[in-house]
Amino acid sequence: MATNMTRGRAARAWHVLCLVLLPLLVAGAARAQAGDPLPSWNDGAAKARIVAFVRAVTTPGGPDFVAPAERIAVFDNDGTLWSEQPMYFQLAFAIDRARAMVAKNPALASRSAFKAAAAGDMKALAATGEKGLLELVALTHAGNTAEEFAQVVRDWVTTARHPTLKRPYTELTYKPMRELLDYLRANGFRTWIVSGGGVEFLRVVSEELYDVPPEQVVGSSIRTKYEVRDGRPAIVRLPEIDFVDDKAGKPVGIHKAIGRRPIAAFGNSDGDFQMLEWTTSGPGPRLAVLIRHDDATREFAYDRASHFGRLARGLDEGPARGWTIVSMKNDWNRVYEQP
Amino acid sequence: MATNMTRGRAARAWHVLCLVLLPLLVAGAARAQAGDPLPSWNDGAAKARIVAFVRAVTTPGGPDFVAPAERIAVFDNDGTLWSEQPMYFQLAFAIDRARAMVAKNPALASRSAFKAAAAGDMKALAATGEKGLLELVALTHAGNTAEEFAQVVRDWVTTARHPTLKRPYTELTYKPMRELLDYLRANGFRTWIVSGGGVEFLRVVSEELYDVPPEQVVGSSIRTKYEVRDGRPAIVRLPEIDFVDDKAGKPVGIHKAIGRRPIAAFGNSDGDFQMLEWTTSGPGPRLAVLIRHDDATREFAYDRASHFGRLARGLDEGPARGWTIVSMKNDWNRVYEQP
Repeated sequence: MATNMTRGRAARAWHVLCLVLLPLLVAGAARAQAGDPLPSWNDGAAKARIVAFVRAVTTPGGPDFVAPAERIAVFDNDGTLWSEQPMYFQLAFAIDRARAMVAKNPALASRSAFKAAAAGDMKALAATGEKGLLELVALTHAGNTAEEFAQVVRDWVTTARHPTLKRPYTELTYKPMRELLDYLRANGFRTWIVSGGGVEFLRVVSEELYDVPPEQVVGSSIRTKYEVRDGRPAIVRLPEIDFVDDKAGKPVGIHKAIGRRPIAAFGNSDGDFQMLEWTTSGPGPRLAVLIRHDDATREFAYDRASHFGRLARGLDEGPARGWTIVSMKNDWNRVYEQP
Repeated sequence: MATNMTRGRAARAWHVLCLVLLPLLVAGAARAQAGDPLPSWNDGAAKARIVAFVRAVTTPGGPDFVAPAERIAVFDNDGTLWSEQPMYFQLAFAIDRARAMVAKNPALASRSAFKAAAAGDMKALAATGEKGLLELVALTHAGNTAEEFAQVVRDWVTTARHPTLKRPYTELTYKPMRELLDYLRANGFRTWIVSGGGVEFLRVVSEELYDVPPEQVVGSSIRTKYEVRDGRPAIVRLPEIDFVDDKAGKPVGIHKAIGRRPIAAFGNSDGDFQMLEWTTSGPGPRLAVLIRHDDATREFAYDRASHFGRLARGLDEGPARGWTIVSMKNDWNRVYEQP
């Protein structure tokens, strides 16, 4: 009897809920159907290709249907989801941190890479070679715990400004790409970031910037170890490279972290070539997209010329491989959230 | 007008749906509330502790509420989710594979570890030391592509039988633990496996056995490289250890793969000690559980005595740390799906 009464109450509550929610739900559904999920993309071949792919893999019973579990999409970060000029933002972070560390401890300036970084002298920094850069990474990125490092990044991200655009780095994500992330997720995809940048750097901002949780970020890493310091367990960051998630490292990083081959991949440089190649060499429908930086007015125009984010092989071989080349200038009607 | 008509039709459809689904939904909710989500667990301190923890972290507005994104639970595999006696199942796989390889290529028997493994001589295998075991792993686990290796594991898993229990290894998962995985997921947790075993071995079975997708499996690994062989891209497995996900390696593996500290951890041996320590040293509500193998009748009784899955420090220090010790004998009313 009690159960019947409970059911009766539940039934009434359900009914009332239906009546109240109905207009909202129907209106919402109509709006979503009518609305363009990619409003910052101009109509054109690139947008049409993306939409056709998503429709194909999500059409139940269709020849190209892909089960939701296999709808994995991977995105490069620097130059694909946010800007990377005049240098990778993480390098800007390393330089700012080198400066702050030298200010506290001037003896550090005796190391040439550190001195060059602190002085903002990119030529001198490049001249220190791989050894110098590794030393810079070791000193600016290691020696503390994972939690301490995340706090240092968080502090930097909230205060630093892009050198020429004079705005926070966090405002320099691409609106069309954020729409694309949302669009894919709304269609049952899981979106992963696969970056040549440091995974522990990127994880601090990935959720806020892209709604991508830390466990869906793959990147380069330094070695860490677990240690109980004064009774407090910690993950300690060591001055040693563990993994470089770039070029042929990207498919390896994807395999390590995800264990399945993605069906869609998005990049902007030859550092993403193998990731797109790996993605598109699987069976069934595949989507590979390269973002071409050709918009000197609203962002930067570089492609083949740049030191950071050079795109040459992808432009040469991509189209014949069925990859989609997106022109920032022509395919996007806006670049950032704030124009 | 068309929109209004569409809305009208949608409204009617919605109304009909409500009427049809209502009894089902209400009945389902009543059953779920009434039902015990952990029927294979006997009432007792261990079960009560688990249920109280889950209620605490899922009660909105409560002092111990944890946002779903942070509801990460990590599970050891061997001895925690399935049996590990008389040896880790992956070692049984390596031995079977060594045997098959020697049958095809008798010259391989000149390597002492291989010879011992193929002969099933555990003492001789142990005598080859770490070098011998690494050689065994290198030869039985490397040299092929990731896809080929997964197929080899799949073939083995579907045909192999446990030496004493005479049934497929896949039937040797613990029913109480599978209920626990389901229960946690139904409460918004994401469940991860963090195993000392090989990640590429475990990923082949994790979804079928535990509903844990490959991207939520962390484990030991060998190095891989990306290679285009005769125009076909592949992940190639190299005979080199990349990462050992055991003891102090477990928090490191968790940090690498997840990037957040879990709030619940489940293990059965001292190889899990640091994982439980790391989990429980964070702020807020925490749950750490150790499964004690004390059931010689239905499974195996070992704990302090065993070579595989030895539990000593956890028993000595766990209770004072607030960790829950589960007795398989007393806390579980069944062990496997099939008695």
